Amino acid sequence: MALPAVRDVRTRKADTLAMLATPAIDVWVATAAATGVPYLVPLSLAWVDERVVIALEESSRTARNLTASGTARLAVGPTRDVVMIDAVLEKSVGVATDDALGTAYAAQADWDPRGQPGYVFLVLRPVQVQAWREVNEIAGRTLMRDGTWLV
Amino acid sequence: MALPAVRDVRTRKADTLAMLATPAIDVWVATAAATGVPYLVPLSLAWVDERVVIALEESSRTARNLTASGTARLAVGPTRDVVMIDAVLEKSVGVATDDALGTAYAAQADWDPRGQPGYVFLVLRPVQVQAWREVNEIAGRTLMRDGTWLV
Repeated sequence: MALPAVRDVRTRKADTLAMLATPAIDVWVATAAATGVPYLVPLSLAWVDERVVIALEESSRTARNLTASGTARLAVGPTRDVVMIDAVLEKSVGVATDDALGTAYAAQADWDPRGQPGYVFLVLRPVQVQAWREVNEIAGRTLMRDGTWLV
Repeated sequence: MALPAVRDVRTRKADTLAMLATPAIDVWVATAAATGVPYLVPLSLAWVDERVVIALEESSRTARNLTASGTARLAVGPTRDVVMIDAVLEKSVGVATDDALGTAYAAQADWDPRGQPGYVFLVLRPVQVQAWREVNEIAGRTLMRDGTWLV
């Protein structure tokens, strides 16, 4: 099967922003314990003010890993149309404490965590963003580096 | 939107085995450095003798993490029809050194790494397997524990 045409970086950025703003989209969240044990779960995502926002139990393994290490690697989209994001934890907010954030999250996600006891919003700031479909898009995949969009 | 009907564990196991045997399917591979930095990439998968086989450069970050830690957490399928696998590294084999493994990998994947210098097959043995679609399938999601199928 022929590979799809290679997109230029501006198109990839536009596609990336559109994907991140998709209603009811999920994100793969990879974290690690300080001992080097990897963890991975799919979670709902909201894209708010250029931040990835996830909602989860504060006691969950992903939240504990993220709070301890401050870093996560995220993937959005199917394996052959991926957006890969390395992100740092900017803040953790109880789901009932930030109205604007809660409203923005619930507007994009297909559930509303604001009534869930023990849940927090974790606000993740992208540091590196890459996007590619197939092997012919590996070159030119980096759209953000050190927190700055390259395009 | 109504959630899909809850599958029993036998159906989930059958669906899981069918998914793992799908031609040209990919796997999300989460690994971590000993320092606790998470990493995540999509790779082609082959399911050979109840093992997940991936092919990658021996010098890649995923291969280095896996060789050092011996563990990975894998996800197959879309975020709302997932198979999650915790696996341990059983062996690392140069791509030109095991004919049966190379043939099995190339028969399922949509590429053949056997001519690629510096590439290895990593053979991963599942220890825990879970499968769920939506929140109503979280209960009963564990199909394998401690390397033994529960169904």
